[in-house]
Amino acid sequence: MTQTVKVTFFDPENSRELAHCIVARGTTVLEAALEAGVEIAATCGRRGRCRSCRVKVLAGEIAPPTLQDTIQLGPDGIRERFRLSCQMPAVADCGIAAMPETDELGHQILAGAGTFAPGALALDPGIEKRVIVAEAPQDENHQTSDIEQVLACLPADTSRDVPFDVYRKLPTVLREELGQMTVTAFHDAIIDVEAGNTSEKKFGIAFDIGTTTVVGSLHCLRTGEVLASMAAVNPQAVYGGDLMSRIAFAQFDAKKLQVLRGRILGMVNDFIEKMTKDAGVSPEHVYKIVVAGNTCMHHLFLGIDTSYVGLAPYAPVVRDPIAIPAGEIPLKRAPNARVCLLPILAGFVGADTIAGIIATRIHESEGIRLLVDIGTNGEVVLGSRERLLVCSAPAGPTFEGGQVRHGMRGAVGAIEKVDIDEDVTCQVIGDAPAIGICGSGLIDAVAKMRDAGVLDAAGRLWRPGVRPLPDRLQARIVKDGESRAFVLVHAAQGGRGEDVLLTQGDIRQLQLAKAAIYGGVMMLQKIMGVGDDQIEEVMLSGGFGNYVNIESAVRIGLLPPVPAAKVSYVGNTALLGAQLALMSEAERALSFEIARKIEHVALATRPEFQDIFVEACRLGAP
Amino acid sequence: MTQTVKVTFFDPENSRELAHCIVARGTTVLEAALEAGVEIAATCGRRGRCRSCRVKVLAGEIAPPTLQDTIQLGPDGIRERFRLSCQMPAVADCGIAAMPETDELGHQILAGAGTFAPGALALDPGIEKRVIVAEAPQDENHQTSDIEQVLACLPADTSRDVPFDVYRKLPTVLREELGQMTVTAFHDAIIDVEAGNTSEKKFGIAFDIGTTTVVGSLHCLRTGEVLASMAAVNPQAVYGGDLMSRIAFAQFDAKKLQVLRGRILGMVNDFIEKMTKDAGVSPEHVYKIVVAGNTCMHHLFLGIDTSYVGLAPYAPVVRDPIAIPAGEIPLKRAPNARVCLLPILAGFVGADTIAGIIATRIHESEGIRLLVDIGTNGEVVLGSRERLLVCSAPAGPTFEGGQVRHGMRGAVGAIEKVDIDEDVTCQVIGDAPAIGICGSGLIDAVAKMRDAGVLDAAGRLWRPGVRPLPDRLQARIVKDGESRAFVLVHAAQGGRGEDVLLTQGDIRQLQLAKAAIYGGVMMLQKIMGVGDDQIEEVMLSGGFGNYVNIESAVRIGLLPPVPAAKVSYVGNTALLGAQLALMSEAERALSFEIARKIEHVALATRPEFQDIFVEACRLGAP
Repeated sequence: MTQTVKVTFFDPENSRELAHCIVARGTTVLEAALEAGVEIAATCGRRGRCRSCRVKVLAGEIAPPTLQDTIQLGPDGIRERFRLSCQMPAVADCGIAAMPETDELGHQILAGAGTFAPGALALDPGIEKRVIVAEAPQDENHQTSDIEQVLACLPADTSRDVPFDVYRKLPTVLREELGQMTVTAFHDAIIDVEAGNTSEKKFGIAFDIGTTTVVGSLHCLRTGEVLASMAAVNPQAVYGGDLMSRIAFAQFDAKKLQVLRGRILGMVNDFIEKMTKDAGVSPEHVYKIVVAGNTCMHHLFLGIDTSYVGLAPYAPVVRDPIAIPAGEIPLKRAPNARVCLLPILAGFVGADTIAGIIATRIHESEGIRLLVDIGTNGEVVLGSRERLLVCSAPAGPTFEGGQVRHGMRGAVGAIEKVDIDEDVTCQVIGDAPAIGICGSGLIDAVAKMRDAGVLDAAGRLWRPGVRPLPDRLQARIVKDGESRAFVLVHAAQGGRGEDVLLTQGDIRQLQLAKAAIYGGVMMLQKIMGVGDDQIEEVMLSGGFGNYVNIESAVRIGLLPPVPAAKVSYVGNTALLGAQLALMSEAERALSFEIARKIEHVALATRPEFQDIFVEACRLGAP
Repeated sequence: MTQTVKVTFFDPENSRELAHCIVARGTTVLEAALEAGVEIAATCGRRGRCRSCRVKVLAGEIAPPTLQDTIQLGPDGIRERFRLSCQMPAVADCGIAAMPETDELGHQILAGAGTFAPGALALDPGIEKRVIVAEAPQDENHQTSDIEQVLACLPADTSRDVPFDVYRKLPTVLREELGQMTVTAFHDAIIDVEAGNTSEKKFGIAFDIGTTTVVGSLHCLRTGEVLASMAAVNPQAVYGGDLMSRIAFAQFDAKKLQVLRGRILGMVNDFIEKMTKDAGVSPEHVYKIVVAGNTCMHHLFLGIDTSYVGLAPYAPVVRDPIAIPAGEIPLKRAPNARVCLLPILAGFVGADTIAGIIATRIHESEGIRLLVDIGTNGEVVLGSRERLLVCSAPAGPTFEGGQVRHGMRGAVGAIEKVDIDEDVTCQVIGDAPAIGICGSGLIDAVAKMRDAGVLDAAGRLWRPGVRPLPDRLQARIVKDGESRAFVLVHAAQGGRGEDVLLTQGDIRQLQLAKAAIYGGVMMLQKIMGVGDDQIEEVMLSGGFGNYVNIESAVRIGLLPPVPAAKVSYVGNTALLGAQLALMSEAERALSFEIARKIEHVALATRPEFQDIFVEACRLGAP
């Protein structure tokens, strides 16, 4: 992968080039503009708290939107390829239209760069901090109590159902600062009281609890600003890499369920502790936590038996959205937080998928769009604002290197990119000698092998009798027991003194994995009656999607045959969806609505899926 | 105290005597009837579950009503002196009208014995156990979850806010008995699910958490029947016998507050464990717990800071009724119970007083009635259905033997009754040699000393110059330092080789204690404009009231000057009120209504109280 990128800036008025520069990959577009001598205002000091630095990405790879992008630019701005230049890293060569400063609330026609209507997200986390001056009871005859004196200063619809921790501290708080106190409420429910004025201190955390990875981000609830973020491997992984093995581990065994639960709660508590510490935030001031995760992660987080989630018909125990005090989970590190779990749709379509829909706004889309999360337990969403279909697409561990002879995760020594002309050239992570191949490398290798005629559409490796290959390629076809294999890296160049090769069996494995996903896509297209050309946009999400060569994915038929320009990587949509629900109760309410509206398709129950699956195994067009 | 009593039975039709018998004190009236050859039906087998054995107490001491009396006979029946003969112990000679069997729902005119209209309490504990057959999700395409399948079988208003423990066990429960399960709800909220039909098993517990004593009773929620009961000394007592010393112990010290809290929670958990074990009831089947206690006990039970309850203006932190899952307290021994705390009125007028009002129905009374709880922290309630006044009447420890030279609690060796004619005769608990005097003995002694001329109305002991006393009495007046004392038991007869005597100081102490209570009564009478003759009934409640000689209490002016027939002991009304709220949500709702309606009088803030108090110190009429 190249270490530098070229960023070219254009005048939005007339599309003429203003300047360009070469910067290190990952440099923000705002920094690149300074480097190139293009002036972009950054009123908030690069914190993503205003929209003065916004740009429009005219060409090249566009970064997935962040929460700041969404808050400042709104879903429409994001769809129109606007981004905050202070938040967007340049990861490949790109063309950027620098926007003139506008009045924060005004509209402006930007000739040559499309219309930009500010559609900022309304920040409404549901957490209200009110500063009141309440009088402690003064008169023995007056029939009152501490809490009644406080309630008298609050809106009439405030719930009288007050947590005990509030009662416990109230007598002191009420008398400490001559009655001046800050009352924090989640909707109509009081969640904390503090002496004095602490209204500025209002924080929340979004979590994406994935089977493989746990990601969290700490936000200021007044601005949405990210104050800290963390990611780590899900510590349940030692009891099984994938969902089914974890379900099996704890099946009909409440103690083992508690083991899994303890691991994830421990990590979430650690994340809260570390992020608040890093950001200099008091954990008592974390008032809202939103969690997105698949059904199994959701149930394990709550300590709910997952035994039957692993058995047909894979029914969840509960699907409704949940919002409960942290003490009930318990998340001891955020004692005052309300923990909100996004809703679930089915056993293998969880809150992460619902979050992904919110983040990508498929539910608002006029045209048909497709969201694909490639993973051990992938999901496919197809539709528009008219109708939404979803299915689970269990690809198995192939894309993580499982069940492939030289398969490995995307780590140093893994082939991640393959080029084939007269011979094979492999790009290896860390520029090290190859020791194996990762999922993105596998997809790329198979795509290039198809192009070179090493593989046919049915997935068969070249064999005598077929049109001959260039000599060097021909030489890479070797016997492998009763079958054959294709050598990607010869033993002499490899890191372990042996050939790194793809066997006929590995190819079959990839076909099954990709057919699980593309078969799901085809099934949903068939049910909805949508042809390939009707799909306006294909969005790849999840950790793996970031590394996939999009052309190759289309070439091997992992994705529908659409122009590569229609395909984009949209980032960790589960986390972004959780962040949106954190910052906006309207967005959280939307998650319930979507969960009610979307239709779940259970592929295994459809008689026609058998044929579709076989077709989906084909490695692209002949 | 005599060990046998005479029970005489009358024909209710013509008031002629049917038969009589002499039985051991404490024998139930039903057993006495069998002994006397009077036939009384006992359809339910003496469990207090029907009203076939009801009688009317025509003469003599009537036992305080039990929960069974209230359930079967209703408040009106109780006021009209009806009782269940299987529940009522004969504690003194009495006259009983044996009722003929009646149709359970019919009315009947009982000539000579008054009208008896069956007014049974409607049992409505708010706990519903529904047996349903729910189908586990069967179809992969059908968008559902375990809980949704269950909710579909329940009333539409059932809350979707389900406790986690239910989610945790639901998958197994739903699949264990082919979907047959029992769902327990408190109003619209699910609190438990069990496989199969367990609808018969529905229990609850009432607690009176007093400063001195903790009493609990376990009931069947279908019938009200008492299955077990327990009483013990409040284990907080080691940190202070009275409220104020406990408040002082934990004042501004959260750790010590936790110490007090831990003690009471430990005892309540022990009670639950032992009572359920004794009754052979599974603790999981205890669904409702009602707690009555004074403000301090209430706050300590919940772990709420009592620092300011002990400082003027003695405001509680919260007064609202509370109903929360046992896990939030936590009461681990009754994991599925909803714990309901009756409401509070003021710092020294707590849920025990509200419970006492419910139990005695003052709020429904046409005429003016007076409820007096004599104790270290006594309360006085005066009123009718028109208006209710309450005040706290802190008598201090005198009635428990405190601040009296030979004062002691009511234990073996305590003088409990005194007679004076030519000389003094003392009755001692356990017929042992006297070692001291308890509260009821003190009241009796002072009353008899007044009658004999040993004391004047101002509380002065006889002194030379006043009308002479019989010789033997005269001889009992001895010098005591600069003051005098009256010898109740001479050293030779005493248990410790010293005179048991009452000093002039002891008399003063009693005057202050009784003035605290009677001053409260006078103050409430004055505010309400009620003369002594307008008071229809005086009711003594609390543990101490049981031992007081009523004539003596009236004689010394602890109670207003009303005929002794108007005064009765009504038992532990805090517990009975809690039991009523346990068995009936309407009664629990009534407690909120009463708490809102009743007016609190803070004696110390009334300028006229000074004069009233001085007047209240007088030991009855000249």
